[in-house]
Amino acid sequence: MNRSKSDVDDRSIGSDFLQLNVAEAPVGGLSEWLAAQLRNAISDGRLPVGGRLPATRVLAAELKVSRGVVTEAYQRLAEVGQVVGRGRAGTIVVAAPVTPPPQAGGRPDALGARSNAGVFDAAPGADIFDRVRAAPARIDLSPGVPDLTAFPRAAWLRAERSVLAELAAADLGYGDPRGAPALRQAVANWLARNRGIRADAREVVIVAGTSQALGLLAGVLREDGIGTVAVEDPGSLGVQQHLRDAGMRTPPIAVDSHGIRVDALRASGAPAALLTPAHQFPTGVVLSGERRRALMQWGGLIIEDDYDAEHRYDRTPVPALKSMLPKHVCYAGSVSKLLAPALRVGWVLVPPRYLDALVAAKRFADLGNAVLPQLVLARLMESGQLERHLRSLRRRHRHRRDTMIEAIETHLPQATVHGAAAGLHLMITFDAPDLDLAAAALEHGVKVQPLSWHNQRSSRQGLVLGYAATNPAGIRDAVAILGKLLA
Amino acid sequence: MNRSKSDVDDRSIGSDFLQLNVAEAPVGGLSEWLAAQLRNAISDGRLPVGGRLPATRVLAAELKVSRGVVTEAYQRLAEVGQVVGRGRAGTIVVAAPVTPPPQAGGRPDALGARSNAGVFDAAPGADIFDRVRAAPARIDLSPGVPDLTAFPRAAWLRAERSVLAELAAADLGYGDPRGAPALRQAVANWLARNRGIRADAREVVIVAGTSQALGLLAGVLREDGIGTVAVEDPGSLGVQQHLRDAGMRTPPIAVDSHGIRVDALRASGAPAALLTPAHQFPTGVVLSGERRRALMQWGGLIIEDDYDAEHRYDRTPVPALKSMLPKHVCYAGSVSKLLAPALRVGWVLVPPRYLDALVAAKRFADLGNAVLPQLVLARLMESGQLERHLRSLRRRHRHRRDTMIEAIETHLPQATVHGAAAGLHLMITFDAPDLDLAAAALEHGVKVQPLSWHNQRSSRQGLVLGYAATNPAGIRDAVAILGKLLA
Repeated sequence: MNRSKSDVDDRSIGSDFLQLNVAEAPVGGLSEWLAAQLRNAISDGRLPVGGRLPATRVLAAELKVSRGVVTEAYQRLAEVGQVVGRGRAGTIVVAAPVTPPPQAGGRPDALGARSNAGVFDAAPGADIFDRVRAAPARIDLSPGVPDLTAFPRAAWLRAERSVLAELAAADLGYGDPRGAPALRQAVANWLARNRGIRADAREVVIVAGTSQALGLLAGVLREDGIGTVAVEDPGSLGVQQHLRDAGMRTPPIAVDSHGIRVDALRASGAPAALLTPAHQFPTGVVLSGERRRALMQWGGLIIEDDYDAEHRYDRTPVPALKSMLPKHVCYAGSVSKLLAPALRVGWVLVPPRYLDALVAAKRFADLGNAVLPQLVLARLMESGQLERHLRSLRRRHRHRRDTMIEAIETHLPQATVHGAAAGLHLMITFDAPDLDLAAAALEHGVKVQPLSWHNQRSSRQGLVLGYAATNPAGIRDAVAILGKLLA
Repeated sequence: MNRSKSDVDDRSIGSDFLQLNVAEAPVGGLSEWLAAQLRNAISDGRLPVGGRLPATRVLAAELKVSRGVVTEAYQRLAEVGQVVGRGRAGTIVVAAPVTPPPQAGGRPDALGARSNAGVFDAAPGADIFDRVRAAPARIDLSPGVPDLTAFPRAAWLRAERSVLAELAAADLGYGDPRGAPALRQAVANWLARNRGIRADAREVVIVAGTSQALGLLAGVLREDGIGTVAVEDPGSLGVQQHLRDAGMRTPPIAVDSHGIRVDALRASGAPAALLTPAHQFPTGVVLSGERRRALMQWGGLIIEDDYDAEHRYDRTPVPALKSMLPKHVCYAGSVSKLLAPALRVGWVLVPPRYLDALVAAKRFADLGNAVLPQLVLARLMESGQLERHLRSLRRRHRHRRDTMIEAIETHLPQATVHGAAAGLHLMITFDAPDLDLAAAALEHGVKVQPLSWHNQRSSRQGLVLGYAATNPAGIRDAVAILGKLLA
């Protein structure tokens, strides 16, 4: 066997830590050399204040020097107050670097708080939801978030412990871009039980939430010659932004009290439409039976964003459009409203003709979702714990919704409430400029979304008010402030 | 306050489970109606065998009927053998559905095992790595995977417990598309300590692994007018596929024993190049000092895929190119080779001019990585546990590498070994068609990658052999089989 040249150069052994190369040290000056390397790293920020030096034993072994060499180098830094020994916690850098760390090129406040100025000034840009999220506020009524204090932390940890105990090592390797089989099966079962959808697990593709679903679907549809996806008006600004970023035109179709106007949709000539049939965003309208039948006649492709269908208080459950029109519906759901948006897990079901393209799109997007959270979620779904959590959420959300409606009756008598029979938010409309109201509210510590953000042709003014993630006292406070500002 | 029409229709309450609507039941026939609904759901597959019915108490409450109604309906199904009561485990569906479940449109074997036939027959397609992964084999020497049996399950669970205990509820909401601040800081510190990179946390963007990094970077560069990214030849087929899927041309530049030929790169006129300087894939060559200096003169944009730089056995550590050329390098790293590919976590650092575009690309891709695993990983990095894990991995990997080299000396004396001083794989070259050998090996239960998959203009034949994820006995077995097949 021959060895190529690059394999035989093993004269000099070193440490990954600071890429120390002992061969560079002068003969007889190892400790001094090491101390100088450490000082340089501290002064140029590679070793930040609070950082920990490797254990002397470990560094000595890596550098193949005696432990005394390392101990002496650390001692030199300790003598000038740059590091301090903290017993079992190790040796810690304590002196501030002499030179400031380099400046990032992004926004100077990128890791800190941002100001509220201008959030509602201009037309909302691509980063609007990041700016809103970063804006400080005392009470956050942004829609689309469930009661996060109810997140089942203990159940999640228990399930994770079981998953880690039972997982095969190979499951930690590169996985199936379609998702873990256990979760795909659990989602198929969940959709059958709760959304009336008869799906085989092989049809389910796990994705990183509905935002990723929209990007992937847009790519798949573009390959199929579809460059337009009609959207509801009013309709989610975020959804429009994602579709447009993925190269889609998004003509607006009016929504009335029965849901999207299917006659207008047909007249638009759009080959595809994105709908929120269970609880239209933002109006909260349920797509009526008549409109559902009209959609069956329409024949176009439907992207069904089933974003909060599981949250239902005083109305009949409605099955997903996917259950009625399996060949015409690309279905997207997620756990963002069931558990937490931070989990970034969702699922997509497409008609058979699109499945291979969807899988390819997911593969090239990120090779598939992370495996551990998928397996944890599968356990919560299959054990009935997620359904229990949903029932408990529903009680809490209903109480918060009732609190908000009461507060609106008291403080905002001039407003009309819409879409409160289900979901995580309600919409109010009124005769006043909603951007001004939202801006004033933020100045007073209350974060709300103006309806007009979600308008294209529609010109109604109002607010989209999430109630699920805020406790009743906060809801009452916030609505009282809105009432004073609108008066 | 006015209530819109859709809010007052609360006559009929129902259950999400099967979308049961009690208003549809005939007067006096509630139990019979419910039993019929359940039978239908069982026969059409919405309630699969093994599925669990809701507790009678829960379903009765949701339907607002007496518990006796539900108990009686369950009893009727039990009498005909469709369900069975299992005490505390609940009532389980046991009878097979009368109609078969619908067929998925994708591959019929999509959730099961696939055959090995044809994996090495034609030019590798977009799904080649999925096909290889799904092919059954007794010993898997695919490159790019660390020893997964060493994954620190207990440390991960402990860190997750701390994270769940200390997390604010708001952290479970929609997060920063750039990643959790704690992980961005931990990565910046890690890169300073271990890769010589002085980065501010604000420059770090957390992504779903290097595959996502490539897709996002390609989009950012295209917006900047760059449509070509030169790649190393031989060079990773997977990387080429990802870049091409994202719309990039990928002209090949020859690699010799000093790394990429910078003269050829300059002559190609490509404005950008993807490099693996620390351990070239697949040859394992380290980019020489002379070539590094030549790259500094070149002036083009470099995407540095620092995929397994931390794994180093008997050579000097080399700092990342990013540390020498911060304004010219887009840097991508991940935990796939440090911990496990299944975690899908990586990081990207770009020159300041590209940062905003990269953040926008990540936002529209998926709104940012999942938060819990980011916070767990940040703890493992900041506590020193990841460095300890890496040291332990290195010992194991070195032993496996030595075992493989010994086995090659014994069984494959005609082969030349390359690039074994670092990494998770080595490359062997020989004078025989490598596709045939890889196909024969798979027939004999050994999975390897033919070098020619990673060739564009290069015509060398050989194998890329991962040793890190296979135990020494498996390595010896597999190499012996390869030896017999090549002889």
